[in-house]
Amino acid sequence: MSQPIEKKILFINPLGTDVFDQPYMEMLQEIKDPGTQVDVVSFPRNGPAHIEYSCYEMMVMPELMKTIRRAEEEGYDAAVIGCFYDPGLRAAREIVSKMVVTAPAESCLRLAATLGDTLSIIVGRRKWIPEMRENVHKYGYGDKLASFKVLDMGVHDFQKDHAETNRRILQAAEDAVKNDGAEVILLGCTGEFGFYQEVQRRVGVPVLDAGIVPFKYAEYLVGLRNQFGWAHSKIAGFEAPPEQEIRDWSLF
Amino acid sequence: MSQPIEKKILFINPLGTDVFDQPYMEMLQEIKDPGTQVDVVSFPRNGPAHIEYSCYEMMVMPELMKTIRRAEEEGYDAAVIGCFYDPGLRAAREIVSKMVVTAPAESCLRLAATLGDTLSIIVGRRKWIPEMRENVHKYGYGDKLASFKVLDMGVHDFQKDHAETNRRILQAAEDAVKNDGAEVILLGCTGEFGFYQEVQRRVGVPVLDAGIVPFKYAEYLVGLRNQFGWAHSKIAGFEAPPEQEIRDWSLF
Amino acid sequence: MSQPIEKKILFINPLGTDVFDQPYMEMLQEIKDPGTQVDVVSFPRNGPAHIEYSCYEMMVMPELMKTIRRAEEEGYDAAVIGCFYDPGLRAAREIVSKMVVTAPAESCLRLAATLGDTLSIIVGRRKWIPEMRENVHKYGYGDKLASFKVLDMGVHDFQKDHAETNRRILQAAEDAVKNDGAEVILLGCTGEFGFYQEVQRRVGVPVLDAGIVPFKYAEYLVGLRNQFGWAHSKIAGFEAPPEQEIRDWSLF
Amino acid sequence: MSQPIEKKILFINPLGTDVFDQPYMEMLQEIKDPGTQVDVVSFPRNGPAHIEYSCYEMMVMPELMKTIRRAEEEGYDAAVIGCFYDPGLRAAREIVSKMVVTAPAESCLRLAATLGDTLSIIVGRRKWIPEMRENVHKYGYGDKLASFKVLDMGVHDFQKDHAETNRRILQAAEDAVKNDGAEVILLGCTGEFGFYQEVQRRVGVPVLDAGIVPFKYAEYLVGLRNQFGWAHSKIAGFEAPPEQEIRDWSLF
Amino acid sequence: MSQPIEKKILFINPLGTDVFDQPYMEMLQEIKDPGTQVDVVSFPRNGPAHIEYSCYEMMVMPELMKTIRRAEEEGYDAAVIGCFYDPGLRAAREIVSKMVVTAPAESCLRLAATLGDTLSIIVGRRKWIPEMRENVHKYGYGDKLASFKVLDMGVHDFQKDHAETNRRILQAAEDAVKNDGAEVILLGCTGEFGFYQEVQRRVGVPVLDAGIVPFKYAEYLVGLRNQFGWAHSKIAGFEAPPEQEIRDWSLF
Amino acid sequence: MSQPIEKKILFINPLGTDVFDQPYMEMLQEIKDPGTQVDVVSFPRNGPAHIEYSCYEMMVMPELMKTIRRAEEEGYDAAVIGCFYDPGLRAAREIVSKMVVTAPAESCLRLAATLGDTLSIIVGRRKWIPEMRENVHKYGYGDKLASFKVLDMGVHDFQKDHAETNRRILQAAEDAVKNDGAEVILLGCTGEFGFYQEVQRRVGVPVLDAGIVPFKYAEYLVGLRNQFGWAHSKIAGFEAPPEQEIRDWSLF
Repeated sequence: MSQPIEKKILFINPLGTDVFDQPYMEMLQEIKDPGTQVDVVSFPRNGPAHIEYSCYEMMVMPELMKTIRRAEEEGYDAAVIGCFYDPGLRAAREIVSKMVVTAPAESCLRLAATLGDTLSIIVGRRKWIPEMRENVHKYGYGDKLASFKVLDMGVHDFQKDHAETNRRILQAAEDAVKNDGAEVILLGCTGEFGFYQEVQRRVGVPVLDAGIVPFKYAEYLVGLRNQFGWAHSKIAGFEAPPEQEIRDWSLF
Repeated sequence: MSQPIEKKILFINPLGTDVFDQPYMEMLQEIKDPGTQVDVVSFPRNGPAHIEYSCYEMMVMPELMKTIRRAEEEGYDAAVIGCFYDPGLRAAREIVSKMVVTAPAESCLRLAATLGDTLSIIVGRRKWIPEMRENVHKYGYGDKLASFKVLDMGVHDFQKDHAETNRRILQAAEDAVKNDGAEVILLGCTGEFGFYQEVQRRVGVPVLDAGIVPFKYAEYLVGLRNQFGWAHSKIAGFEAPPEQEIRDWSLF
Repeated sequence: MSQPIEKKILFINPLGTDVFDQPYMEMLQEIKDPGTQVDVVSFPRNGPAHIEYSCYEMMVMPELMKTIRRAEEEGYDAAVIGCFYDPGLRAAREIVSKMVVTAPAESCLRLAATLGDTLSIIVGRRKWIPEMRENVHKYGYGDKLASFKVLDMGVHDFQKDHAETNRRILQAAEDAVKNDGAEVILLGCTGEFGFYQEVQRRVGVPVLDAGIVPFKYAEYLVGLRNQFGWAHSKIAGFEAPPEQEIRDWSLF
Repeated sequence: MSQPIEKKILFINPLGTDVFDQPYMEMLQEIKDPGTQVDVVSFPRNGPAHIEYSCYEMMVMPELMKTIRRAEEEGYDAAVIGCFYDPGLRAAREIVSKMVVTAPAESCLRLAATLGDTLSIIVGRRKWIPEMRENVHKYGYGDKLASFKVLDMGVHDFQKDHAETNRRILQAAEDAVKNDGAEVILLGCTGEFGFYQEVQRRVGVPVLDAGIVPFKYAEYLVGLRNQFGWAHSKIAGFEAPPEQEIRDWSLF
Repeated sequence: MSQPIEKKILFINPLGTDVFDQPYMEMLQEIKDPGTQVDVVSFPRNGPAHIEYSCYEMMVMPELMKTIRRAEEEGYDAAVIGCFYDPGLRAAREIVSKMVVTAPAESCLRLAATLGDTLSIIVGRRKWIPEMRENVHKYGYGDKLASFKVLDMGVHDFQKDHAETNRRILQAAEDAVKNDGAEVILLGCTGEFGFYQEVQRRVGVPVLDAGIVPFKYAEYLVGLRNQFGWAHSKIAGFEAPPEQEIRDWSLF
Repeated sequence: MSQPIEKKILFINPLGTDVFDQPYMEMLQEIKDPGTQVDVVSFPRNGPAHIEYSCYEMMVMPELMKTIRRAEEEGYDAAVIGCFYDPGLRAAREIVSKMVVTAPAESCLRLAATLGDTLSIIVGRRKWIPEMRENVHKYGYGDKLASFKVLDMGVHDFQKDHAETNRRILQAAEDAVKNDGAEVILLGCTGEFGFYQEVQRRVGVPVLDAGIVPFKYAEYLVGLRNQFGWAHSKIAGFEAPPEQEIRDWSLF
């Protein structure tokens, strides 16, 4: 007897490349709830293939907005913005009517703070730290931040040599736990997928995967919305724009 | 075909009265996931019938610890501490090995911060505010706190005259939203059950129920633990005490 | 004898309308340094005519990035992003090599904190507050914020009935100074131009104009850059993306 | 001529062992004011012999509450809760009518902040840090915290080999002063008694003893209460519970 | 049998008028410990008769420094700087070798935070608030601050019409307790002496006197210094200047 | 054709020595705007030759106040207080009517936060750190502070052996950028003049000179005041004292 679909979730790789789509589809298929339908999209090939730079993020924002908007029209219950900068999260929560939107940093930080007192974030490059630290403070977790650790790898490097990446993450995580006092480790890039289990087993503290956490958080939030009507508050910060304006300006 | 039990959750009314047990059992049965088994317990009748005072909280702590400990031995996946002061939350997360422990304030605040930018907490008495405000800051949400609103009612007053309680909560919520800038409302007592829907419908922003939210958060966290091994980090803040000491001192 | 051009500054109205371009050109011509050349641009007509919503902001980001990039190529010394949300400020400072980028909130807040101990921000709608408050905290001025005051007007309302707008701003400013303890007033929208003088005269505290302040700050910063080489640090948060990627992906 | 008793103070070792009672009695006799009567109590032998774990703390809370309550009935002017976690401090201040209650962390932090700009806390185990850091922030001294230093010793280890303990504390203190910028050292456990003098002499900055400081603070506060009526405010956070409820539930 | 002198304390009215010296001498004689010798000084008549302005404070700084320095030479154990701005407190703690220095805001805030969760400060003029709020944050009590209340009176007005002053303080205190959530009241000027008792009796929460509190704190700190060697740490923030320089420049 | 004087600025070396006057005059002449007239003053020879100690600062405060006051009377548009402690800044802004007052720490921090996300301050001695850190927090930049680095040099050492000073600053700056994550370097003493260019060239991030920055900030602020009337708000924190009192007490 087939399971009825209860939650339709779109995972967005906000990148101008589909190299992560297939592996993400496989990973999410494995970890989704039985009643969840998952789809993965990325953006047109002429866009940036990674968004390590804030100016790259900005270039994909209209595509992200349109994707979010279309997702709701197509009946998705949630969209996950698959980048640890949480790009466009406020805007996406504005644009939707009832759909849930999640992102890695917010969901990982909230979860981490329940699992331990302090956390470290393992990033690819030093360049990423300022924008991410800003988010850590914005979400209210400045006091819980033990450290950032840098792997000296770009978004597209993590999957090249799995053993090497694993070695670096493990070393960074052990350093964070032992010397910086971290009790929980966050993998600070959706490109760092496939590593959390091994590192977690070795280091002995929770190691949060930046793709899985926001996806499961989306399932959780959709459930709450469906049962209790708890969705993004539309009274101020996430107030939706007038449909008339959207039509007049052919926006999304 | 009956649903197999996937998650066993114990909801604890940390009070020396069982007056809330039956209504909570009914409420949670309605809102639990199909695969969740729920049980509700309260404490021996000779204890305090409410814990509006921190010194009352302290009197039930051993019973709470023993209940948490026993729950894990009996195979529960999670325990919910049913009081908005989140009493004994750190201690409970220490004492367990793999079981998840949740509580209202922490779970409501994390959820609220995802649903909106600012929140107000509707409490029974002014007396409750200092301890709760301390928790709001501790969890990292000091900047999101719009206001506390006081109903001038005790824990056992909320269910006496449902219409009157509803009227007061509604008035407080409207005041918070209109004048204090709140985008999300938290009902700051597990005794305020049965009101969120009507108030939410009237005020138009999410109104979080202090019993439902930590219960659903427990289901969510148990799922994460089962699938991904993400449980309370045991390396420092939640390190468990040595079993030998527990036996030597016949502690729990 | 004509003054040689020392500083070329582009004021960007990040809106899909040119209604503000002419008045801004006139205002900036009047207040610029003698050696400054000023230009004003807005975006294609098919974009949003205001960006009161974060999702509208996101829709103009590529145009903003391209405008910033092109401005540097065309020899501008600075660009001013003319919206009090400071949209894309981090991204813009990344994308440039040596050009200075300023925006209203950052420049007004830094100036205000030198002029007084506390400040209030007068906004058009309640909807604007959460994003702006986030910026106030991000820039480090959370402790100096006395209040937000709401005029209940949109970006395109301010210039409709000058007397009415003046009356509302004056009332809000007086309220902020008298009851909220504000020592400096910020007009929290570039659309609120033309009012600061009268209000300042009446209220007796500095009233900062959201268009003039970032423009003069840009002149100041260009001077510092030219004389001392002090420009946006490119080592981490504002590191520029590789030119090769920009070309490969035809980004800006 | 014998000194009349002006202040009666009870020092509570909140432990299920009396091994610290005699040494504390001797130490406090030496350092008390002439007009102070001091008594030292510990808890029944079947409880935890140390409370390094929050769940152990919780197990002694009823005994602590009863001890506090009884102390006031027996005419004590103050009670000192002898554990650097400050367990049950809020609850104890509720339960009393006029009696003063003090604890190590609060009193040491307030004193340290008067003696210097930054402080380090020397603890036995890493496990203690999260709960203590939480208290440092709660009391308002997060910005003054230079570091925690870990001795890798338990509560009952400090007095085993005095020379070794002294050596480790000295090394930790010197490291904190030299490398972490600490100007004041706090010995973060009442079990670390007998060391402050030697370490202070060697390191040259104030080294605060976790047993002496709250005791002297209690004397100071009792004096203020007696002369000026300044006692714990009973209007909200420390409001006492109704006597009727205490009787009905045979609580303390 | 006369009491031997154990503590010699100098109370400094840092004003160019002696109008407060006699009343302060009388008040302090009444409230000092039996073994304390108290003296009260003010500054030469050609200085400012009040220091409501920071620029007035600055004009008396050399006289304050010299007075502090001379006090230590004359064998005083402590000096109290009698102004709620705590003028020159850091400098005074530098200049001394072993003498204790206290001031109203620091001592009242530390005490208030032990007595309750939140506090309000009753000041003479709005003008005083910014500098005092800065101190509240500096000392770590920003989160405990409920409000400032303004009496619209200057330093020399408080003692003119005792009934009127009492009436205004009472009104402000009641407002703070009832509407702002204050649990402790601070009288934010040493000129507000003689009122705390009546207001405290009427309002029912601790009302701290800005002259008495730092004086008793000085007695407490001198006791700690004498018994335990705990004095201002001289390793960094309060490091004393070289005597050679003081002599070369005939400084104090 | 000679340039008309538009801005008259007084740079104050608040020291009892004129050794820095001539080099500062030369440096400021080189970097001032064409229309700016600059003067440099120091204080009488019998005062402290440096103000590394807060108690030295206090000794020069009356001279500073008088100098500020006289400067305004003599038609200066701005005064710069040349010490990185920003001594007397609040007081100076009170005492003036329309004149602008700036100081190194405030102006460098505001500029640094525009140029990068984090900053390190290179000081002479560890002793300076606490007072400066206090200012960093007061101005709102606590979250941006990467580190303080200590050169182990006094104010009068920096210019003794230029190569050695350069070597030390360079090493400290490189360490801060590489290991502490600094994106901008602040030279934390006006005595560290003459080094910023070389260090900046070598380290590749902005290195701010503590004398130049507040001077240029003064020019900027005078321009804003002249054009827009934006001067220090006189309504509360910077309210000026009554002229009558100043006369009665012959204050400045």
